[in-house]
Formats: sequence, C-alpha cells, structure tokens
Amino acid sequence: MTLAVRYTSARTLDTADTAPASPGPGEVELAPAYVGICGTDLHIFHGDMDSRVTTPAVLGHEMSGRVVRVGPGVEGWRPGDAVTVMPLRWDDTCPACRAGHRHICQHLDFIGIDSPGAMQQRWTVPASTLVRLPDSLPLDRAALVEPTAVAVHDVGRAGVRDGERVVVVGGGPVGVLIALVARAAGAEVRVVEPSVHRRTLAEELGLTAWDPAATDVAGLVREWTGDAGADVAFEVSGAAAGVDSAVEALGVRGRLCLVAIHPRPREVNLHRFFWRELTLVGARLYDRTDFERAVGLVAAGTIPADRLISKVVPLTEAPSAFEALEGGGDVMKILVDCGNDPTGALA
Amino acid sequence: MTLAVRYTSARTLDTADTAPASPGPGEVELAPAYVGICGTDLHIFHGDMDSRVTTPAVLGHEMSGRVVRVGPGVEGWRPGDAVTVMPLRWDDTCPACRAGHRHICQHLDFIGIDSPGAMQQRWTVPASTLVRLPDSLPLDRAALVEPTAVAVHDVGRAGVRDGERVVVVGGGPVGVLIALVARAAGAEVRVVEPSVHRRTLAEELGLTAWDPAATDVAGLVREWTGDAGADVAFEVSGAAAGVDSAVEALGVRGRLCLVAIHPRPREVNLHRFFWRELTLVGARLYDRTDFERAVGLVAAGTIPADRLISKVVPLTEAPSAFEALEGGGDVMKILVDCGNDPTGALA
Repeated sequence: MTLAVRYTSARTLDTADTAPASPGPGEVELAPAYVGICGTDLHIFHGDMDSRVTTPAVLGHEMSGRVVRVGPGVEGWRPGDAVTVMPLRWDDTCPACRAGHRHICQHLDFIGIDSPGAMQQRWTVPASTLVRLPDSLPLDRAALVEPTAVAVHDVGRAGVRDGERVVVVGGGPVGVLIALVARAAGAEVRVVEPSVHRRTLAEELGLTAWDPAATDVAGLVREWTGDAGADVAFEVSGAAAGVDSAVEALGVRGRLCLVAIHPRPREVNLHRFFWRELTLVGARLYDRTDFERAVGLVAAGTIPADRLISKVVPLTEAPSAFEALEGGGDVMKILVDCGNDPTGALA
Repeated sequence: MTLAVRYTSARTLDTADTAPASPGPGEVELAPAYVGICGTDLHIFHGDMDSRVTTPAVLGHEMSGRVVRVGPGVEGWRPGDAVTVMPLRWDDTCPACRAGHRHICQHLDFIGIDSPGAMQQRWTVPASTLVRLPDSLPLDRAALVEPTAVAVHDVGRAGVRDGERVVVVGGGPVGVLIALVARAAGAEVRVVEPSVHRRTLAEELGLTAWDPAATDVAGLVREWTGDAGADVAFEVSGAAAGVDSAVEALGVRGRLCLVAIHPRPREVNLHRFFWRELTLVGARLYDRTDFERAVGLVAAGTIPADRLISKVVPLTEAPSAFEALEGGGDVMKILVDCGNDPTGALA
C-alpha cells in the first residue's frame, strides 16, 4: 500500500492508503519525490472546483520524481530515471488540437485536477507526459519546473523582447517566476505586490518591487518610462484592482498578458485598449517546448528555485500545509515530500 | 465669405459665413466636395465631447474635394487636384511617435475634432495630410475613403487571413466596411446587426447578416464553424452585449478586434480569454498605408461606396441631417454636399 493526499469535500483533505495499479500499455509508474502546492490546488481545497473534480481526488501536478516501472510498449525510459511530468492529456481530434493548440484542447484532461495527481507515493501517468531531468538537478528544485513552464509560456505569449519594460502585477510564485523569466529575456522588470514578505523575497532576487497600497503605481510607471508607459504587463493577481493597474501601466501598443484566473467578469477600461491600441493576450498552461526550456532555466540556476521554496512538509502534513497557505502572504512555495528515497532507491 | 457647419453647444449646430484664411507655409486650401457624417460627429453633436472640442467647432473629417490654392513651399500639388485628407497631425516627439506609432501620438490633433473640420466651403490643411484620388473616382464615393481606411486598419490589426471565419458585431457603416475588407482578404464573414434596414443592405452586398434579437448568435457560430468558434470577431457595436457576443463567438486563440468606443468600463469575461487563449486588439484610426489601400479598394469598386450612401444633403441642411441620424437604423452614410462645383471649376 502507498499513501496519497486526497481532497474529499470543501476544506477537507485526508491521507489514505491506496493500492497502486500496474502501469498499462504506454504508461509509466513513478515514485514522486516532491510535489508543489499550487494556487489551483488551493482553489480545489476551497471547494471552488467541485463541479470539475471527482472525489476523492488525489491532488498535485507540480512534481519531480523517478521512474519505478514501465508498462508494455514504453521505450526510452527505465527505472531510476529522474523526471517531471507535463500533466496534459489531449484528445487530438477537437478543433483546438487540429489547429495545433493541443495544450488548450477543448476536452483537455489536466492530470491532478481532472484525473489523479502526484501527491502520492506511486503515480501512474502516460509515458508521453514525461520530461527528462538532468541528473545534476536536485529533485526539490525540479518541482519548480512546472510553474516555471507556466512563466515561460506567459512570457512567450506576451512576446517580451530584450530591453522592454515589464510590469508584473502579483508577486506570488508565478508572478516572481514570470519576472525572472522576463528578466532572463532581457527585460527591465517591476513587480507590484502588497505582501511585504513577497516584496522582500523579490528584492532579494534582484527584482524591484512596488507596494500598490503605499505608492501610486501608475505614477511610478510614468516616471520609470519617461511618460511612455510599460511595454508589457502581466496580470497575475486575480484581483479587479490588478486588472486596472496592469491596463493603466501600459503605453501605446502595450501588451497585457492575462495569467490569473478571474472566475467572474471584470470591468475593463476598453476605451484605453482602443485609445492606445493595447493588446490583451490570454495565456494558459504550456507546451513541451516551454517545459523543456523551463528545465534548462531551473537547472542553470537562472530560476533560483531553492530561494522560492519556503518549506518542505511530509505527505502526512500536507492537509495542515493547505490550511497554512490559506493565510497567504508569508510563504511562497510549499513542497510536499512524498517520502520516497530521493536517491532513487525504491522501497 | 464661405459657408461652414458649426457645433455650438449640445444638440445645436448652425451654419455661418466664415472668412477663409490664406494657406500658410506647407498648407493647402481645399474646396471640400462631399463630407460624410460620422459616428464621432454625432458624439460631438450630443455634447459627449465638450471637454475636447473648442466651440464653435467646424465638424467633418470624411471628405473628398479639390485643391484650390497651395501655400509657400508646397510641392507636388496644384489647383484642381482631387484629394482626400488623412486628418491627423502628430507631434513627432512623444513616446508613441518615437516608437513609430504616430497615428496614435499622445498629443494627436485629429482635424475635425481637435481643430476645424471639412464641413465648409473652404478648408485649409497641412499638405502632408493630402492623399491623391484617381481622376476616375467620383468624389461622392471618395468621401467613403476615410471610413474605409478605418476598416483596412482594423482588418490589419486583427491579422485576418485567407479562409478565416470572421464575425462582425455591428452592421453600421464601419461594420459593413470591415466586413467587406475582411471578405476581400479572403475571409468568410457574418455580420450581427439588430436593424433590419442595415441587415438588408448587408445581404444586398452579398454578406450574411444575423439578427441578435431573434437568433442565438453563439449557437449559429458553433454550427457554422463545426464547434470550433470564429477566428476573428470585430466589436463595432459599442454595446455591452456586443462585447459579450464577440467574446462568445471566438474559438481557441481567436482574436477580438475592438473598434467601437466604449466610454465606460465594460464587464468582460476574462476567464474566457484565459481559457481559450484569446487575444483582444485595440484598433484606432489608420496610417498612410491604410489610407492608400482604402483609395484603391473604393476606386476598384471592392467597396461599393455608392451603395453605402443613403442620402446627400446640402450644407445648409446638415443640421437637420444630424437630427435625422440620431434616430439611427434606417440610414447608413449621409453625405453633406458642400456646394462647390464637383468638376473642380472654382467659384
């Protein structure tokens, strides 16, 4: 028997013994090492996604681990290989897939939301989802590859170029990762974030962070850009005020990349979009190119993943970690240690 | 003395004799032939733009006419030349101009709003604003070049490609022009328009028009596109419901081109932008390339300008034409005939 963290109903997680299934054709059984807790996992925990998840639901999609067993027909992988998972299964037949946008397949199976996730001691996934990790990359840092792939995708969607001025509204894990990836692309970056803890961390990483409660962000942007406005803004806060800040920050032909989830419609200053010929670009998930680029950025230390990990908790303490994260603010990324031997020696 | 139509205060236009000034260095005096009444002119008439216009304000920026006199230093133009005007003056120094987007200069002078317009018998403008018209193009049709340039710009901003499916929300003059320009680019087009008069005209031009009051537009789009959704939507209605219709129509990675003016913030389904990775692109005015392309499209009859002209009224009847247009619905474009001899013989 192996242990799993399961969402059972709003604000309730348990840990339970589960019997792992043998990997079927094309499947691989993994021993997850570390699994990050993501904002989406918190949404599930809050009960906001009950219409989508099937309970009991094993959560987790930001992971690192090793291959345990491969199913029939799987080539190129063997036990002990260090991997992360791009947790997407598409149908290959819908209009989105046919147009080449499989990562936003109209019937996408997001593994860890729509089907069982990684917060367990054994996890079986399609071999096609595996992404190889370099042996030199510690597995705790490697758990940051998935959110880094999100950031790579977002920066790509916004088309950030060398020398551009970029405002990131929201300095949580994804916001900071976007800021770091944009900086690696040659941009000058400002992060807008109300939490002093998160601003301090951003500053320690060499980023400039502004407190929207204490400063006039629009005025700071004008001063910074010589009245031109920013080239790119990322809305990562999910707040109505964040949308306004991002729109307000942009200069003529500026691009706003929408990263956060806004469950309800938001009032948007469309006149500004008209007047300044702004562009709004939605960005969701990633593709394999983004994932592989993210592996490289984390492995090279361009993304200082170790600095973003606030805490590592054992699988049995994951439920209380979710509750602690609800308070927000004073943490960035919490990892769940699945209790598998990180050297790859299998129990 | 020459006659001019002037906006004096909310819902009040008069006609007055004015003394034309001699063209200064770099300027040209024109005899406007026809001037279209634009939605923006109606906004001014309603008093919605009082903070921007200086009264008494001579309106009009959709025009055709002939050169009367050229000022010192003007080369390449001579009396009798048939012209239209790209009514933009930029400062060439602001960040927008320096970035190459002079048409949305941060201190743009839009001639006909920020400075005196064409609804008069003599009009002096910078020679740099002139756009040559082919002799074969009747001047009444040529008055449609300016709104056609708007449509060319919009279709360019949306990046409409051959074979794409395009929904135009709003079937007034600009909406129909966008539909025609998109069709000329190879797109399949549907126009969404509540007015039966405007739908009938669109259908007579070979377009398919849907009544949003009587049909389920989203359902029709799904049926039309095999559940994929449209590639491009244009929001030309200015209505909150129009924004929703346009967003709802788009498939994965669809582009929404925002053409209409929305003076107040609108609720926008940002989740859909995230989920389908949609793009919103603001589009305003045009540049010289758009204008020259528009001259070609009107001259070639690709834009059947004569079909879009509902009525031609003399200068003295312009005030009552504005009142008639307020009713909306049963007209497309009304032209004001400035009473200058259309053959170019000057009084």
